[in-house]
Amino acid sequence: MAANLLQKSDLPAEGIKRVIVKNITPSVACGNFPAKCAVNTPVAFRATIFADGQAVLRAKVQHRMTGKKKWRELPLTLTGNDQWEAWWFPETMGIVEFRIQAWISGLETWKHRFDLLQRAGLNTTVEQLEGIAVLRNIPEEDPEHLYTEDIHSFLEDRFTGIKPEDIPSELFNRLVKINPAGKTTISKIYRIDVQRQKTQFSTWYEIFPRSSAQQAGKHGTFKDVMLQFPKLSDAGFDVVYFPPIHPIGKKNRKGKNNSLVSTVGDPGSPWAIGNEEGGHKMINRELGNFNDFKRLLEAAGKYNLEIALDLAFQCAPDHPYVKKHPQWFKWRPDGNVMYAENPPKKYEDIIPFDFECDDWQSLWLELLSIVCFWIGKGIRIFRVDNPHTKPLRFWKWLIAEVRKKYPEVIFLAEAFTRPYIMEHLAMIGFSQSYTYFTWRNTKWELEAYLEELTKSNKQFYFIPNFWPNTPDILTEQLVNGSESAHIIRFLLAATLSSNYGIYGPVFERGINHQIRGKEEYADSEKYEIKYWQPEGESRIWQIIKKTNRLRKRFKALQVTNNIEFLGSGNDRIIAYLKIDRLADEHLIIIINLDPDQPQNGMIYLDNEATRMFYGADFKVTDELNQEEYFWNGYTNYVALDPGRKPAHIFSISRQEAMNSENKMP
Amino acid sequence: MAANLLQKSDLPAEGIKRVIVKNITPSVACGNFPAKCAVNTPVAFRATIFADGQAVLRAKVQHRMTGKKKWRELPLTLTGNDQWEAWWFPETMGIVEFRIQAWISGLETWKHRFDLLQRAGLNTTVEQLEGIAVLRNIPEEDPEHLYTEDIHSFLEDRFTGIKPEDIPSELFNRLVKINPAGKTTISKIYRIDVQRQKTQFSTWYEIFPRSSAQQAGKHGTFKDVMLQFPKLSDAGFDVVYFPPIHPIGKKNRKGKNNSLVSTVGDPGSPWAIGNEEGGHKMINRELGNFNDFKRLLEAAGKYNLEIALDLAFQCAPDHPYVKKHPQWFKWRPDGNVMYAENPPKKYEDIIPFDFECDDWQSLWLELLSIVCFWIGKGIRIFRVDNPHTKPLRFWKWLIAEVRKKYPEVIFLAEAFTRPYIMEHLAMIGFSQSYTYFTWRNTKWELEAYLEELTKSNKQFYFIPNFWPNTPDILTEQLVNGSESAHIIRFLLAATLSSNYGIYGPVFERGINHQIRGKEEYADSEKYEIKYWQPEGESRIWQIIKKTNRLRKRFKALQVTNNIEFLGSGNDRIIAYLKIDRLADEHLIIIINLDPDQPQNGMIYLDNEATRMFYGADFKVTDELNQEEYFWNGYTNYVALDPGRKPAHIFSISRQEAMNSENKMP
Repeated sequence: MAANLLQKSDLPAEGIKRVIVKNITPSVACGNFPAKCAVNTPVAFRATIFADGQAVLRAKVQHRMTGKKKWRELPLTLTGNDQWEAWWFPETMGIVEFRIQAWISGLETWKHRFDLLQRAGLNTTVEQLEGIAVLRNIPEEDPEHLYTEDIHSFLEDRFTGIKPEDIPSELFNRLVKINPAGKTTISKIYRIDVQRQKTQFSTWYEIFPRSSAQQAGKHGTFKDVMLQFPKLSDAGFDVVYFPPIHPIGKKNRKGKNNSLVSTVGDPGSPWAIGNEEGGHKMINRELGNFNDFKRLLEAAGKYNLEIALDLAFQCAPDHPYVKKHPQWFKWRPDGNVMYAENPPKKYEDIIPFDFECDDWQSLWLELLSIVCFWIGKGIRIFRVDNPHTKPLRFWKWLIAEVRKKYPEVIFLAEAFTRPYIMEHLAMIGFSQSYTYFTWRNTKWELEAYLEELTKSNKQFYFIPNFWPNTPDILTEQLVNGSESAHIIRFLLAATLSSNYGIYGPVFERGINHQIRGKEEYADSEKYEIKYWQPEGESRIWQIIKKTNRLRKRFKALQVTNNIEFLGSGNDRIIAYLKIDRLADEHLIIIINLDPDQPQNGMIYLDNEATRMFYGADFKVTDELNQEEYFWNGYTNYVALDPGRKPAHIFSISRQEAMNSENKMP
Repeated sequence: MAANLLQKSDLPAEGIKRVIVKNITPSVACGNFPAKCAVNTPVAFRATIFADGQAVLRAKVQHRMTGKKKWRELPLTLTGNDQWEAWWFPETMGIVEFRIQAWISGLETWKHRFDLLQRAGLNTTVEQLEGIAVLRNIPEEDPEHLYTEDIHSFLEDRFTGIKPEDIPSELFNRLVKINPAGKTTISKIYRIDVQRQKTQFSTWYEIFPRSSAQQAGKHGTFKDVMLQFPKLSDAGFDVVYFPPIHPIGKKNRKGKNNSLVSTVGDPGSPWAIGNEEGGHKMINRELGNFNDFKRLLEAAGKYNLEIALDLAFQCAPDHPYVKKHPQWFKWRPDGNVMYAENPPKKYEDIIPFDFECDDWQSLWLELLSIVCFWIGKGIRIFRVDNPHTKPLRFWKWLIAEVRKKYPEVIFLAEAFTRPYIMEHLAMIGFSQSYTYFTWRNTKWELEAYLEELTKSNKQFYFIPNFWPNTPDILTEQLVNGSESAHIIRFLLAATLSSNYGIYGPVFERGINHQIRGKEEYADSEKYEIKYWQPEGESRIWQIIKKTNRLRKRFKALQVTNNIEFLGSGNDRIIAYLKIDRLADEHLIIIINLDPDQPQNGMIYLDNEATRMFYGADFKVTDELNQEEYFWNGYTNYVALDPGRKPAHIFSISRQEAMNSENKMP
């Protein structure tokens, strides 16, 4: 028999540990990747913890910055159904390690049983004696004997037993924190990437610097761009993102509307990087020089704006790399280098790197050096062009290497591709991700997508950045709905997601000329220089300004995962709660999704978080339209007109609700 | 700059591998525990597999019995959205290891691009030359050069290039199976516990052997039990489960109805194990001796019945262990040993082991030796009493030790406790689990519970065994609904779950006398010997017999995870599909959940699996009631009467559907 052959020493040492710890979050892919969070944004550590039988458990989370020795600790509390949690406010950027410890609290198990017997009126003589044994046992479990003396002095005269209430609460509370050596279950170590707050809360404006000149027909410069900073800053943007600013290839340069033939004066696509003047580490001389760039960044800083650059790891055919490092490209049997393509489409002005080349290591190092170069020039945010067409392991390595030294660097993944690839890019390190928001229009689509982003495991690593438009994407919705559609899509982006961006000059003007049959802008700025005549404040711009101010004022709009959808009884009216418990903010956002027709509905507040407001009239203040309403009970009427008032952004403060209760007769 | 300090050798070697493999199933808790499957029951290996860019991928799963060196292989195929799968039919019991390999198929990537260009009518001269390079490259990736010669002879005269159609398909198919050394992504190793088929498909009948005597007032024996085998076997049962058969404690023995005082002749609870005659390795002499036991098992075998014993790891106060191994029990300051309790309730006839005692290792070894003892006597199925009151790590160890040598042993966890503990018991090794089915009565409850069991990760490790009643549980449903409720609950158990059981003698007779206010049988057999007068075949018994025959006939009823619920337009009518694609079986089960009133509804067949039947009348055969109907299209009417016909078990065969199509004018 197997049993007869086994010795005591064959038994697992952990056999004496009765507590199980599992389902630990925040965690990503079994702990293989760090979860994401941001400085000053509360994080919940959670776990499922239980043991056999009736014992009372204790648990704590230990955390430390990677590389540090000493753990810091927080107690976990039971929230029900064997789920435990602790809240933590990260203060420093970097990769934090954490683990969870759980054990049976002998003292509390004894107290719990004692209380049950006492409440049932049963004799506790034996239990009182047992109390002494329980206390005497604690020093054995406490190798540093921190409490031995206190216990001894407490037990000194108590030979006939003790009751739980005899133990001074101060001593009791200290004793229950001791975790018995050898009998404590300790989880493996998980990691959290504490990023800077802007990964969670940012407001992007995309602009082609070359189209910023003060008069038509001129090539814009960094100096021209600086003139727009007061307006952008005043409107509440904090990231200004430029498409590539490098010399543009001349060979196979594209003409207007992506034409294969360019004529003199055609500037080419900024994504066709490099010519004989230089490549990824050079500035297109028409925009300015490195001194101008330095002044640009200084000016941006004064307006609380940050410049984000584009990382497009590809070359024009006349990029210096092609001659200097031919081994990084795929050469064909006819002696030509392979163009970028999506067969049968070809992109003749761009050639990709061959990441499978024999010299891939030196390619990786060079690409890393490009990022470091721009970090050296003061850039801390990169929007990465089509990361899904470069190896996933390359990004994992590059982002980790950069952020080891510069944890404040943000990488936004511009991947509009298949779902598992998009989620994997976020998993391996991208700070923010473009999303499918651009194509989620109906209420059902929006709700389902937000549920996926904020309630599934994605909440721990996929940080969305919602864009209603980009230079590559002009959706049917914006084309058909015109100004109202722009406002609706903007309001959705800016309140559903704490990170959002617009491709600005066309968006604020409501420009929506499509190439026939394509989701693309006609006469795209990608292939020509535009002159954006300054205008008075458009209706779109006014709503942008107002909304961005609300985003700065309400903490509830500065995270994405705090959303709860509300019923409205109308498929064209979407409604959601955004709550920040710490700041005691309750926002109810209601948007008419129909750009053409007024819609009305009944907002259902049948939600745990809104229950506190029941029982009396409570005031909701529309922060967008400066209106007030008195609401009452579970359902309240709303009517929204896309032309005049497409949305409510209601705030309810608990205090007002209480005041209104106080006013009750 | 970090980049300047890095050398090529600092780069990860896996950088050259472009394929990502993740979300591998079947897997449990990140691969920490083996998934479960059964011999001869198909298993799907699945994974999410993708790479950057446009490459064509190949993937395979490798599997082997633990301890074996050589891997066996199956190709994975893409089912859509980057999901890949392969089906496997396990043939041998034991722990199987598997891993997944995936790589970019250079040959197919070339062919795919070639075909696109050719279809677009574009020139492929360069691509034809590239084809030669692709083929020449394959031997480098194939260290054993299995194909070098074939490739060389194929390329011999082809200097100007090749087209995909030039390559003989036999050669092509062999070449695409080569995974390039160094560039293939290999997953970690996962484990599957291949158990015997009875873990997936079993039909249990619980019986107290002491109540099997041929006349009232006598103590039943194993010989009496044997007389019931023809009936049980004929009715389709295959496991006969006995409560403990050991000597019963005399100290603090319980009287009738759990009375604290027993009178002469009270047999006591069989779960109060042990007296001076022996303990867990002894048979209560009133039932018979070891020879009788041997004959019992032989007789059972002849009727295709298997005896399951109860493992109740606890002692009566007069169990020999208490004197011989006092260190295994918790002694109190008053010199008494601690009784089992659920404060303020006490179970004076039972004392638990102290799994935290200093000598826990010898206790574990002794408990293992009990299991091995009964295995030695021929037992291969154990129903484990209250496993959640013993340490979880103990069960993990014990089950693994037993099954290392006896992979055919089945452990059923009798844990009616909190959800995370129940699921953890299954995760750490219990073959089957009691469930919450007993308390899931409404359509919504049943559907939600089955979705949880069969569609969540539980499908990989939690194998349910549905019991409408047990000696400990008589629900309100059975009390109020009487005979019809028994039939409904039976039909649900026997068709929702491929494993089910009944506490037989009371169930088949529809006995439902409750202790007032408790979910328990009055005058419970747990505390007294019953005489079950033989009766004619009750209506309940007839339905049990019929249903068990259908369970044996239809493979679709022999697994649990193949369920799809159908709409019925009536909350009292539940309907579900059970499909076995291999056997081409489509069952539609429809049950009236209302034990009092006839109900009717419209069954919605708007389901992928049923679409093949549309387009003409198709015949559904009620295998339970021997009736036929002609159905048509998406919705079909049903009416069920609890007193006469509480359910349909419809079979549709594809052939009949086709025949009926053929009959169309």
